[in-house]
Amino acid sequence: MSDLLWQKDGVRVDARIMRFLAGDDVLLDREFLLHDITASKAHVAGLGRIDVLSADEVASITRELDALAEDFRNGDFILDDTHEDGHSAIEARLVDRLGDVGRKVHTGRSRNDQVLVATRLWLKERLDDLSDLCVAIAEVCLQRAGGESLPLPGYTHLQRAVVSSTAMWFAGFAEGFIDNAARARTTRDWLDANPLGTAAGYGVNLPLDRAYTTEALGFARMQVSPIYAQLSRGKFELGALDALASTLLDLRRLAWDLSLFTTAEFGFVRLPDEYTTGSSIMPNKRNPDVVEMLRASYAPVAAARVEIEQLLSLPSGYQRDLQLSKGSLWHGFTHGLRALDLMPDLLARMQWNGEAMRAAIEPSMHATDVAIEQAAAGVPFRTAYRAAAEAGSDTGSGRTPESSLTARVSPGGAAALGLEILHDRLKALKDKQREAH
Amino acid sequence: MSDLLWQKDGVRVDARIMRFLAGDDVLLDREFLLHDITASKAHVAGLGRIDVLSADEVASITRELDALAEDFRNGDFILDDTHEDGHSAIEARLVDRLGDVGRKVHTGRSRNDQVLVATRLWLKERLDDLSDLCVAIAEVCLQRAGGESLPLPGYTHLQRAVVSSTAMWFAGFAEGFIDNAARARTTRDWLDANPLGTAAGYGVNLPLDRAYTTEALGFARMQVSPIYAQLSRGKFELGALDALASTLLDLRRLAWDLSLFTTAEFGFVRLPDEYTTGSSIMPNKRNPDVVEMLRASYAPVAAARVEIEQLLSLPSGYQRDLQLSKGSLWHGFTHGLRALDLMPDLLARMQWNGEAMRAAIEPSMHATDVAIEQAAAGVPFRTAYRAAAEAGSDTGSGRTPESSLTARVSPGGAAALGLEILHDRLKALKDKQREAH
Amino acid sequence: MSDLLWQKDGVRVDARIMRFLAGDDVLLDREFLLHDITASKAHVAGLGRIDVLSADEVASITRELDALAEDFRNGDFILDDTHEDGHSAIEARLVDRLGDVGRKVHTGRSRNDQVLVATRLWLKERLDDLSDLCVAIAEVCLQRAGGESLPLPGYTHLQRAVVSSTAMWFAGFAEGFIDNAARARTTRDWLDANPLGTAAGYGVNLPLDRAYTTEALGFARMQVSPIYAQLSRGKFELGALDALASTLLDLRRLAWDLSLFTTAEFGFVRLPDEYTTGSSIMPNKRNPDVVEMLRASYAPVAAARVEIEQLLSLPSGYQRDLQLSKGSLWHGFTHGLRALDLMPDLLARMQWNGEAMRAAIEPSMHATDVAIEQAAAGVPFRTAYRAAAEAGSDTGSGRTPESSLTARVSPGGAAALGLEILHDRLKALKDKQREAH
Amino acid sequence: MSDLLWQKDGVRVDARIMRFLAGDDVLLDREFLLHDITASKAHVAGLGRIDVLSADEVASITRELDALAEDFRNGDFILDDTHEDGHSAIEARLVDRLGDVGRKVHTGRSRNDQVLVATRLWLKERLDDLSDLCVAIAEVCLQRAGGESLPLPGYTHLQRAVVSSTAMWFAGFAEGFIDNAARARTTRDWLDANPLGTAAGYGVNLPLDRAYTTEALGFARMQVSPIYAQLSRGKFELGALDALASTLLDLRRLAWDLSLFTTAEFGFVRLPDEYTTGSSIMPNKRNPDVVEMLRASYAPVAAARVEIEQLLSLPSGYQRDLQLSKGSLWHGFTHGLRALDLMPDLLARMQWNGEAMRAAIEPSMHATDVAIEQAAAGVPFRTAYRAAAEAGSDTGSGRTPESSLTARVSPGGAAALGLEILHDRLKALKDKQREAH
Repeated sequence: MSDLLWQKDGVRVDARIMRFLAGDDVLLDREFLLHDITASKAHVAGLGRIDVLSADEVASITRELDALAEDFRNGDFILDDTHEDGHSAIEARLVDRLGDVGRKVHTGRSRNDQVLVATRLWLKERLDDLSDLCVAIAEVCLQRAGGESLPLPGYTHLQRAVVSSTAMWFAGFAEGFIDNAARARTTRDWLDANPLGTAAGYGVNLPLDRAYTTEALGFARMQVSPIYAQLSRGKFELGALDALASTLLDLRRLAWDLSLFTTAEFGFVRLPDEYTTGSSIMPNKRNPDVVEMLRASYAPVAAARVEIEQLLSLPSGYQRDLQLSKGSLWHGFTHGLRALDLMPDLLARMQWNGEAMRAAIEPSMHATDVAIEQAAAGVPFRTAYRAAAEAGSDTGSGRTPESSLTARVSPGGAAALGLEILHDRLKALKDKQREAH
Repeated sequence: MSDLLWQKDGVRVDARIMRFLAGDDVLLDREFLLHDITASKAHVAGLGRIDVLSADEVASITRELDALAEDFRNGDFILDDTHEDGHSAIEARLVDRLGDVGRKVHTGRSRNDQVLVATRLWLKERLDDLSDLCVAIAEVCLQRAGGESLPLPGYTHLQRAVVSSTAMWFAGFAEGFIDNAARARTTRDWLDANPLGTAAGYGVNLPLDRAYTTEALGFARMQVSPIYAQLSRGKFELGALDALASTLLDLRRLAWDLSLFTTAEFGFVRLPDEYTTGSSIMPNKRNPDVVEMLRASYAPVAAARVEIEQLLSLPSGYQRDLQLSKGSLWHGFTHGLRALDLMPDLLARMQWNGEAMRAAIEPSMHATDVAIEQAAAGVPFRTAYRAAAEAGSDTGSGRTPESSLTARVSPGGAAALGLEILHDRLKALKDKQREAH
Repeated sequence: MSDLLWQKDGVRVDARIMRFLAGDDVLLDREFLLHDITASKAHVAGLGRIDVLSADEVASITRELDALAEDFRNGDFILDDTHEDGHSAIEARLVDRLGDVGRKVHTGRSRNDQVLVATRLWLKERLDDLSDLCVAIAEVCLQRAGGESLPLPGYTHLQRAVVSSTAMWFAGFAEGFIDNAARARTTRDWLDANPLGTAAGYGVNLPLDRAYTTEALGFARMQVSPIYAQLSRGKFELGALDALASTLLDLRRLAWDLSLFTTAEFGFVRLPDEYTTGSSIMPNKRNPDVVEMLRASYAPVAAARVEIEQLLSLPSGYQRDLQLSKGSLWHGFTHGLRALDLMPDLLARMQWNGEAMRAAIEPSMHATDVAIEQAAAGVPFRTAYRAAAEAGSDTGSGRTPESSLTARVSPGGAAALGLEILHDRLKALKDKQREAH
Repeated sequence: MSDLLWQKDGVRVDARIMRFLAGDDVLLDREFLLHDITASKAHVAGLGRIDVLSADEVASITRELDALAEDFRNGDFILDDTHEDGHSAIEARLVDRLGDVGRKVHTGRSRNDQVLVATRLWLKERLDDLSDLCVAIAEVCLQRAGGESLPLPGYTHLQRAVVSSTAMWFAGFAEGFIDNAARARTTRDWLDANPLGTAAGYGVNLPLDRAYTTEALGFARMQVSPIYAQLSRGKFELGALDALASTLLDLRRLAWDLSLFTTAEFGFVRLPDEYTTGSSIMPNKRNPDVVEMLRASYAPVAAARVEIEQLLSLPSGYQRDLQLSKGSLWHGFTHGLRALDLMPDLLARMQWNGEAMRAAIEPSMHATDVAIEQAAAGVPFRTAYRAAAEAGSDTGSGRTPESSLTARVSPGGAAALGLEILHDRLKALKDKQREAH
């Protein structure tokens, strides 16, 4: 490692220790390098505005930063463990190309605000991705909720309860993913604050033009306090993971439904072939592995959250423990977004087996309807309930799944799905999103 | 237990099993009973609007519900394990007082939406509490940040780094708690949706006036889908706990600072006497127990979150597992809010020891200032950095903590705290809150 | 609160702060009071052995401690929030009854080792309970595995895979709970170390007879280092919760099987009536609530573990944060043991529906048998696999579930269950347990 | 990907889906490939013993497996995402080299028991590593506890409490790491059971010689039930992570001590230079980054545990969710063992600053000694305690840290460290370990 910015003469560096400290940090920095370069350009332009750098110096550094970004994208520059980290790599490259001018890039900043601003830009993009995926999933769900609807047994306690419908099922997840998109959005707004210019956590003796860098980097507001900039490391990462986890909570339940509905015993859903795999020993198997991995996707996000919150039992001020938050964040978002990314296609193409679902609807599932009808006619509900309970499977005679669904007129029920309300909410969200981009 | 609504003849009830199922659920329901009564009144009024109940029936039930609330507040009605749960207790009481009219209260609803609406009303109140406490804490911090400021060593890695100030420290937490208040607020708005009228998760065959109950209960919107109403059980609880945890993350770091600053070795802070306790064996001790319990308060909230997320690996539809979410929610919020509640007084009254702090500021802490000054004068920063590093403790000669702070002009720095920006943000938040109440 | 041992004159006590500090700690201490008394008796006898107390003093204090235990058991002494905690309550009572002699009980000990020894004695009992329950569950499973066995579809990915049997199912959980019992046992041995006599974490200037108290209290060894005694607070609690969680992991999967098997769609299992409940709105429902609560029981244990591990990011030495470990421990063990306690009866009495299980066994489930038979006859397995895959549902012609099970001769398979091995392991465990008691 | 064992004609494979399913699984399999090969050799030899393979076939396959292992070690065989996973890669290679003979390797096994046995062998090695590292750390601690000892302030609540010593500090961690080694050991024994031969979780129709493979692979016992073999996936991984976490809990507290002791304010410890790093902006800094990363190492282990326990809310039988347990396990053990690996050297070479420690010992820290002396002389302890409290800082007059330590004669105290007991325990452990290797 050749770029230890802080290395002093006469102190030997122990390879095993350096490896322990670095971990896979420098590899992770690949994910954040372009954001670091973007922020470095804003920093340099800001230094130009307060005459700490000349216009020529700003131009040179900017040009070399653009070139580095280009080389990185092309694979001509490889960030690997010959560098201490991405931050040092940028400075080392500038010094290599520009000599003393390169040695000026770090004026008035620290790696502490450098990593904050790079990960914050990255976080905003990921929350945009999250919100976009939630919108896409909600759209497919709404579309299918508005299309053909088939009777589906409704369960509580996994026991047959009352008649439901595929439209109700899709509408339920539509509303869920609209809420998830909304939360991704407000989370993005919540953390949309610029930490660049807070240096090591105490500011600097330069009149940095933070208002400029805030605008140049597209942040909604300045993160004013340098102390708080440091306190927000991990806190904002957790906020983003919270929004992701909340979304995956719905995904986990959806995947559980699909796992159940694709068993031979339920047999309600058929997945497109490419969403299933085979067995190494059992020739007869087609397994819904994708559904299981979707269900499992909550786990890495929960783990990422725990990893960060375990780190954060610390006094204020930067501490090296925080380095581990980067890998956790990457781990959680990578798994989570990949899972969500498969959903629009899967939801659009999964097929219901109407016959199997109808076969699973028993007469006794009309008992609640019967009791409520009698209650509406004046019989005290609890009395009607007991009568229906005693009648048992006779309660449903002369009733069909369709008649039950047609009568389900409470708002949100099968006969009053309220899809237009959900469409309106989704549209409002998309409008806000379009505005922001 | 006398009020098993669903009890059928001939099925014996096993006491040990009932105890396992109930746990301390009915005691927890004390926390939610008044909300349950409030929602029951709206439900009954709604039934009146669609002529399922007569005006007289509505009036009778409403009167008895008010009387029950009154008795509960007075201690004349005690919710204990002679009842299956709070929901059953309400119906049993109405039947007891009103006979057949009481047997009508449950028309068109299920305990499933009943518990949802009661906990949701409770959640909104708790998030209001959270947001109010965050505002109160931010106000004290802002006030002290704007008052007398003393030089305080600034640390990274718990090592002395650069000169900081007590104003910077308070301003940092002020900004943190403003963000926390904002998040409590958006979380409240996010879950401000009415689940009443979704029954067991599939709606009912009655044209329930959900728009009315939504408005009557003060919800911002209807939770449209009954499927989603069930999916949101636990999900919204987690969202609320996420907001609380995010706040306590800052509190934990603040408490860590105080724990450190009240050691004899640092000696920067003196707590009011009543925030300390003594030892059973060591006569010489005054211990900052409160600070330690504040620091510990993150733990029960993290635990509550885990308890709920562990439950939620389930297919859609109500399942009894969800019952445990109630205790977790209560456990987390009780601990968390109690901790926050102590903060305004503690922060207002803690005293800085200016002398000890000044003694801890070493000349070498000016090195960064020196290097940046030279950088501003044209020396490449990395070169100036190395020079300052070699100069060691000589770098600070002729400099004082005050001179360092006066020169800290980067926005957010000691000489440009930006308190007016924070005041404006806080005011905007409070305006929004006042509007909502 | 009248018994603040450490209270100094002139320092006012703030009720709100004291409440925050106490939480429900004193109520929790009810759980540990008898253990505290037991340990206090050993402590006092130990002081007698080194002549710090006279024989008379030892006798008086012992007599009063016995009386207190008796009163507590009878309900004549109530530990409530008029006491600071259980430890103080004991000393206050002794002072009240014995005057100066009572004031001697705390000689050479601190509440720090007092709480350690009381919780450790409690932990050992709970791990005994855990191990006993695991043994009882394993015994029922082994008994049923050795009784009538019916063909049961075997699943992977919740898809029908190969023929299994109810005996195999029971044998699987038998082996699991044998391992769980073994772990409870080794965990108990691991933490079977006496912390009494380590005082506040640094020992005292008295030649305490710790060998005596170690033996008197039934500990296997002394916890030598006072520093480590403090470090073990929380660590040993976590170890115990780890063993409990590991057990509940198996219970969760067992409960999931039952939840699935009691759906109408699978219909493999019928629970005794008293393990089911009804619905408040749906007259037709019988719900397997107990099974769901069993499944949910992992959650409070996981939560307890998290609560403690979140506390323990601390330097060495006692810190008040640790107080919260007591409630977590209680919460986790109470839920976990209650759940396990229902299992022997439930497992003994659940009924298989042989017809439904047989109906779920499809001919294609014999494909693996066919391929392996051919492989045994010399056809390369991968080739035989492909042939069987192409043959599809024809593969099973002429085969029955029974023929498949009879041929399953690999050790542990249906035709070679190896129950005698499991019986032997269980017997060895029980012998060890008997020995220890 | 060319080796989808289960691929059927006519089903297209979607690259994006395959990528989602695979994740980085195949890269992780590099860690387990040699164990997979070892187990494959035992499996093949076992097939030879029951005449499913001829002696020649066994020899050929064994030879090729050895060659593959050799190539893998040399880098001539690279396991990458051209393979579905490590298991498939092995079979593909054998088919490639041996044609039909290679197609026989999978007779009677499934990837389900293949992954189980490979990870189990790996787990046993890692627990050996863990136990070895704990022993090494305990040895250094014991050595230093037995060497020069200096007075060190003892803290409770981070407040100065009584005099302690560096020997006591080292002895405390010595006892902790002895317990940690013991737990690693019993955990290893607990999971030392052979799952090979359980196939997909239901056994096979071949009289597999599982007793042979159990012995050949060095397992202590057979995991009898195929159902339980599947249930143990994740459960045993968690057990191992529990043991690791328990160890890192002590490490976290140790690192916290060092973090505190290396502050300028405490100044008790000086780390070897190579354990510190510099700052990118502050020329004056030497930061104890290593100590902070050691402290942080608990977090990835906690995260790994959560990731696995979140997956395991499933019915019995293999499900694809479990795949994610592999990465979690690797993540946790890699971080944890790397951290522990630095400790023996760090502990051996850290230096105490006797002067700073002595300066931090105040007269009032003798108050407990004084009170206990009086108690020993007959004054009721509570009375003596109050007198000492009132005397305040006068209590210590004429006392020195050394006199306090010399009088600390309670077993485990500074004057009776009991190192010989700890030496004996450690020796017993090492003997057991040597025996096992």
